[in-house]
Amino acid sequence: MRAVRIHQYGSREVLRLEEAPMPSLEDGDVLVKVVAAGVNPVDWKIREGHLKEMLPHALPLTLGWDVSGVVSAVGAGVADLQVGDAVYGRPDIVRNGSYAEYVAVRASELAAKPATIAHATAASLPLAGITAWEVIVRQGRVQPGQRVLVHAGAGGVGSLAIQLAKWRGAHVIATASAANRDLVLSLGADEVIDYRSTPFQQAVRDVDLVFDTLGGTVQALSWQVLKPDGLLVSIVSPPAEQHEGRRGAFVFIGPDAEVLRELAALVDDGVLRPLVGAEFALADVAAAHELSESGRARGKIVLHVGTP
Amino acid sequence: MRAVRIHQYGSREVLRLEEAPMPSLEDGDVLVKVVAAGVNPVDWKIREGHLKEMLPHALPLTLGWDVSGVVSAVGAGVADLQVGDAVYGRPDIVRNGSYAEYVAVRASELAAKPATIAHATAASLPLAGITAWEVIVRQGRVQPGQRVLVHAGAGGVGSLAIQLAKWRGAHVIATASAANRDLVLSLGADEVIDYRSTPFQQAVRDVDLVFDTLGGTVQALSWQVLKPDGLLVSIVSPPAEQHEGRRGAFVFIGPDAEVLRELAALVDDGVLRPLVGAEFALADVAAAHELSESGRARGKIVLHVGTP
Repeated sequence: MRAVRIHQYGSREVLRLEEAPMPSLEDGDVLVKVVAAGVNPVDWKIREGHLKEMLPHALPLTLGWDVSGVVSAVGAGVADLQVGDAVYGRPDIVRNGSYAEYVAVRASELAAKPATIAHATAASLPLAGITAWEVIVRQGRVQPGQRVLVHAGAGGVGSLAIQLAKWRGAHVIATASAANRDLVLSLGADEVIDYRSTPFQQAVRDVDLVFDTLGGTVQALSWQVLKPDGLLVSIVSPPAEQHEGRRGAFVFIGPDAEVLRELAALVDDGVLRPLVGAEFALADVAAAHELSESGRARGKIVLHVGTP
Repeated sequence: MRAVRIHQYGSREVLRLEEAPMPSLEDGDVLVKVVAAGVNPVDWKIREGHLKEMLPHALPLTLGWDVSGVVSAVGAGVADLQVGDAVYGRPDIVRNGSYAEYVAVRASELAAKPATIAHATAASLPLAGITAWEVIVRQGRVQPGQRVLVHAGAGGVGSLAIQLAKWRGAHVIATASAANRDLVLSLGADEVIDYRSTPFQQAVRDVDLVFDTLGGTVQALSWQVLKPDGLLVSIVSPPAEQHEGRRGAFVFIGPDAEVLRELAALVDDGVLRPLVGAEFALADVAAAHELSESGRARGKIVLHVGTP
């Protein structure tokens, strides 16, 4: 089968679209015929070797850990999925990924694809959606009336975080470029800060939860806008656990079928709108990574891999 | 290039996935590399020959008149589109269609693809969306507070009609099976009638606009629920122009880039949510037609044709 693999860590030049062996199924696995694969920053961070101490990957490695597709074979011990089921998920990141015609995934890591959206849209949702859920619902426990600041509100994770925070009843402040202001308002943000013209730390205060999708200086300055008992959650780099009484937390999510089912219901109910900002053929994976690395993508980036 | 053509009118067996000549560009045309093609009832009505008196088609004919894709060549006299532009549209139905790797389309019939959705979703929108717009906005001139009845509210056209009528401020009543009740409510319908358990003509009255997507008995009974100055618009078969003072109208839309731009803005603003209920590979076009012919599809049916 065709797959995008790396044989060494490095820049985009190490990406190879090539023939690779069909995945073998372990007990509890299903084989998914991949229709679309989501592109996430973790893909190129792994490609560049930044996570090699943390993740026991063998090379060559097939990248990509967001998938929407159709079950094409079922391994031993799988009771709840059948050949032909449309599924989506964020599979275990230590295994070969979804930039491939087929991927082996534990059935327990998959959920039924939302019934009202295309595979390309479904493939954009798992990793970003589980991440946004973890921060807004589980860590942040956002309550009605709380104030939430979402950095990079037009991005793949930020755009979902805004919508989940609104669904929980929060007052949502988001940063975005002027060009994305209307889009971010359409997601439900109550206030949008053009971070280029206005330092957010001067425009925002008394926040219960900061969702840090950027790290670095943005993270460091974010403490200033928090309430004394506020929480800063980052998905980029671990913040201090405490800063003048305020709490910090780091989130790196894993597979989570339970949350996938929650997200699918919200999508099919019209509450959650996944944004697909760019689509590429599998052969153009380097261009997809380039866009992801730029940090300038609007919504999510998706690779077209196969047909349903 | 690969295309699904018919060499004679008939049942699904006449559908042939085969090599076909690349379309030649006339002045004002662009060549679109097709990523996805929407499936509409008109496709199999043409395939069966029902419209052959009306439409001057030459055989073999490539079916399909909903497209989302990327401009791959530009003909003479085209100023506003460039190679690489992502576009969507409902091209002129007398020309060869979009069940093909490439389709020649007048540039004036295309609009920029909505920026926040996948090609597969965009391909589901043009014909159904222009139709819903024509009925709700142009013919119906729906005003806030008016009462609108949408038959088959979970269908490809009905699901968009509900949302457009709500956007115009109407009180929307829709028919749907019990299984689709929650979906139709999520689109904004104020009342949902399970047509299997409740004759709609007993449950609804004083309607300003009936949107008839079914024809036959449903159309005939729909006169009863209209206000004395109400309007019945059908997209299936022409109703009487007058019935006890009430007006009837028939809609069969053509290409309309202006409306495509309106629809794209509504999608990107989060007002309009196109439902993709089923996706098929181009090779499985017969199964896609079978589902369309069944009248039981939820939302729209889309064919995967190529990559962006």
